[in-house]
Amino acid sequence: MRVPQRSVEWTQVTEWKDGAVRSVQDTLAAEEPLEIRLDGVPLAVTMRTPGHDIELASGFLLTEGIIDSREQVVEIVQKIQPDGSGRNLVEVTLKQSNLDSSAVRRNFFAASSCGICGKASIDAVRHRNLPTLGTGFEIDPEWLCRLPETLRAEQEVFNRTGGLHAAALFDGAGALLVVREDIGRHNAVDKVIGWALNAGLLPLSKHALVVSGRGGFEIVQKALAASIPILASVSAPSSLAVKLAREFGLTLIGFLRDRRFVIYSAEFRCVPQPKPAKCAD
Amino acid sequence: MRVPQRSVEWTQVTEWKDGAVRSVQDTLAAEEPLEIRLDGVPLAVTMRTPGHDIELASGFLLTEGIIDSREQVVEIVQKIQPDGSGRNLVEVTLKQSNLDSSAVRRNFFAASSCGICGKASIDAVRHRNLPTLGTGFEIDPEWLCRLPETLRAEQEVFNRTGGLHAAALFDGAGALLVVREDIGRHNAVDKVIGWALNAGLLPLSKHALVVSGRGGFEIVQKALAASIPILASVSAPSSLAVKLAREFGLTLIGFLRDRRFVIYSAEFRCVPQPKPAKCAD
Repeated sequence: MRVPQRSVEWTQVTEWKDGAVRSVQDTLAAEEPLEIRLDGVPLAVTMRTPGHDIELASGFLLTEGIIDSREQVVEIVQKIQPDGSGRNLVEVTLKQSNLDSSAVRRNFFAASSCGICGKASIDAVRHRNLPTLGTGFEIDPEWLCRLPETLRAEQEVFNRTGGLHAAALFDGAGALLVVREDIGRHNAVDKVIGWALNAGLLPLSKHALVVSGRGGFEIVQKALAASIPILASVSAPSSLAVKLAREFGLTLIGFLRDRRFVIYSAEFRCVPQPKPAKCAD
Repeated sequence: MRVPQRSVEWTQVTEWKDGAVRSVQDTLAAEEPLEIRLDGVPLAVTMRTPGHDIELASGFLLTEGIIDSREQVVEIVQKIQPDGSGRNLVEVTLKQSNLDSSAVRRNFFAASSCGICGKASIDAVRHRNLPTLGTGFEIDPEWLCRLPETLRAEQEVFNRTGGLHAAALFDGAGALLVVREDIGRHNAVDKVIGWALNAGLLPLSKHALVVSGRGGFEIVQKALAASIPILASVSAPSSLAVKLAREFGLTLIGFLRDRRFVIYSAEFRCVPQPKPAKCAD
């Protein structure tokens, strides 16, 4: 994977090591605000790592429940001027200009890099209309064990700066389709899903999403919005992530490393079931 | 530090290890939505680890720029019923009931566990009125090196679940004042600052804040709102975090581990300056 130049920034820093002080050059993961405007109205500002911004906006619209398919979108554009201005703004035009404004309003509050921020009430935390997952997709645990290594090898920016989250989409044949990195875990997931949306791959019903960080509630919700049946992380999920995954039958995997993993829900997709009738979700 | 029981939840999971499958009991970091209401109006919902919710709301109000001091608050209450209901709601009453509604509205968009989500425009990402830091507080690098170990020893929930972020406040004498853990990094910081606010310790001008995760823009902004001059992390900061720290003269430290750290800004507070006139911020 080639790293877009603006994903990292160089700076002069001071290193202290065992009492010795020296000035060194260091790379930083770039972080800049991106504003997403919907039909001319500000929808959200998210702090993101520049690059793949159209994908980020596309994925955000889908995973936040503002659109259900690419067909609802007229265009998603970023008007970057010769002096670089405009690069932190993505403008979205939807076909249905008479979109329910209260629905957009509700989503406006929802809109954020964490997917759940600023909502007006607790009832609003969960999306409307999350799709039901199919049960016809299963994978080999040995194949699953190889995914983190594949992901790490692709994480160039992380290797340089140590500051980014990654998300990767694998297809049912085990091929790595796309990797995206971002200072925000949710943005990395939105970029991956936005890439797939724009490539016409949705629903992602025979795919696995692997994330470098924790599998929280909102990451599970974003995976569900794209019909992804398997979500794996090298880290621990939260209690609410597990609850949501169990309710919707998403296979949630944690601590995926060193030929070991923990399955929190819908384990039938990755371990053989002696009594499938009892264990199917 | 005693761990509040609701910070973790037990659940039955499936472990796959080198081809062997078994059912095991596991602990999960608890995650539940907390709604903060301001004078009866919903201000924000944040996904947090239950516990220290009054502190979380108090710190949130300060670090999001809604209040400047504890004196502006009449009360912050959580009305938990015998059946447990009400535990996910904190109600805030401010003295100044004629609070500028557009300011609150602006902060409403700001309100989130990431501190910057859902803002109506990029201009709104930064707070009004961040205080200027003093230059009279300096620390010994050797003392700084001991902080992560002290923090890790206190991180009971993390040790059990692997799923939480921690934030800790140290005073100028090197004493650990408070540690808070949360599924959201920003919540851990808000809980620490809220604790200090309610203890009457603000401004925290002779204190250091240590966080377990990345030092992002919004964490720097929260530290600045509480006048904390030193922010240290075991991980990498983002480009915007460094920019904000340099602008306000906050000493931002990253990669604090194994008797080594990197200073990104205002290094005069932790390494001797041969030419203090040039290096002071």
